[in-house]
Amino acid sequence: MYTLYYAPGTASMVVHLALLETGAPHELKRVDLDAKAQHDPDYLKLNPRGVVPTLVVDGTPLSESAGLLMLLAERHPDSPLAPPPGTPERAAWYQWIVYLSNTLMSAYRFWFYPQELDDTPAVRAALQRRIEGVWDLLDAHLAVHGPYLLGERFSGADLLLTMLMRWSRNMPRPATDWPALKRLADRVRARPSWQRLYDIEGLVEW
Amino acid sequence: MYTLYYAPGTASMVVHLALLETGAPHELKRVDLDAKAQHDPDYLKLNPRGVVPTLVVDGTPLSESAGLLMLLAERHPDSPLAPPPGTPERAAWYQWIVYLSNTLMSAYRFWFYPQELDDTPAVRAALQRRIEGVWDLLDAHLAVHGPYLLGERFSGADLLLTMLMRWSRNMPRPATDWPALKRLADRVRARPSWQRLYDIEGLVEW
Ligand SMILES: N[C@@H](CCC(=O)N[C@@H](CS)C(=O)NCC(=O)O)C(=O)O
Ligand SMILES: N[C@@H](CCC(=O)N[C@@H](CS)C(=O)NCC(=O)O)C(=O)O
Repeated sequence: MYTLYYAPGTASMVVHLALLETGAPHELKRVDLDAKAQHDPDYLKLNPRGVVPTLVVDGTPLSESAGLLMLLAERHPDSPLAPPPGTPERAAWYQWIVYLSNTLMSAYRFWFYPQELDDTPAVRAALQRRIEGVWDLLDAHLAVHGPYLLGERFSGADLLLTMLMRWSRNMPRPATDWPALKRLADRVRARPSWQRLYDIEGLVEW
Repeated sequence: MYTLYYAPGTASMVVHLALLETGAPHELKRVDLDAKAQHDPDYLKLNPRGVVPTLVVDGTPLSESAGLLMLLAERHPDSPLAPPPGTPERAAWYQWIVYLSNTLMSAYRFWFYPQELDDTPAVRAALQRRIEGVWDLLDAHLAVHGPYLLGERFSGADLLLTMLMRWSRNMPRPATDWPALKRLADRVRARPSWQRLYDIEGLVEW
């Protein structure tokens, strides 16, 4: 049994999508970030850093969205989240998830929480360059090896990527400006899991 | 068969350690970062971002050290790299590897390549704070739940952590200042794989 502590549209989104893709029963608990509920002592017991998501798995609270995606893929091998062990796609799957996680996830953290670094135009420009550099690299990859990160086969890595693309929608150059990225996002946004998540989390903007 | 493109003491170290822990045969190719060999056209074909490591697995070049660690653990289930699927330790293993990767790996990148962000005292201080904040969190975890990240059981996550600790050795406050972290590093440094890597890579400083 799973319990997901989430906030709409945040890093919890990929875990929520992954749960919907597996079809596994799960309970949702909304954490009100505007009310700073992520700093409540009870929540900090589950997640000492005070961030979402937290996924409680068989009574144990766990964090890090990309790690939770990999865990759910392992626990639900019949879901479309990951290619089977031993295939060449499996190796690429690890690579892309880790790449997305330690380039985009970290750069966005500083982009959305500038006070954690230094809120100057030079730093913002550098972060924007870094994020756009990732879109360049991914778009070049997808143009040749797409439509999905692993080629013809959809996987949970595409859920992570599309969530991270979505976060750029109000940036100077949103990720959907890159054509092969846009094509991938269009496919992911057409999935039942994406549409269901929008209903449940009450999201409106892409 | 594996071929590892590496540079001594860099992010390739955890992949090299993982290979030694598995006992799998592998070939090493040194990339001379001082000579900018990571930008040679032939290397860029293997690794478009021009970084180490690259691990060639059955003819396919792959990158991202933390992802390679997970791949090697999966391909060598009898090695000590990862706890078996289905155990509670397995879930924590994913969490810690992803956490280390997207907090420390990314902060170090900016620490060691300041021109990629903005080379100002305020930014350096913020990065130092971020890195030391990770040591605080990990030390608190290990003091209660150690000696390893997963408790009594050594895993590849400890190799990743000890490599990342090592990178702080010339920082204002090296990670070994934190007692529970130092204890973990001492255990990892006593492993045959660590000692063998020092010989092969010709490392001297801790
Ligand atoms: N690396 C973490 C990032 C978690 C994170 O930064 N979550 C943000 C929302 S996207 C959050 O909880 N922010 C609230 C806060 O930091 O106070 C993950 O992927 O799970
Ligand atoms: N996230 C990558 C980081 C790779 C990386 O930044 N490697 C550095 C050495 S630690 C490198 O190759 N630097 C040379 C350069 O950027 O020119 C990984 O973990 O594999």
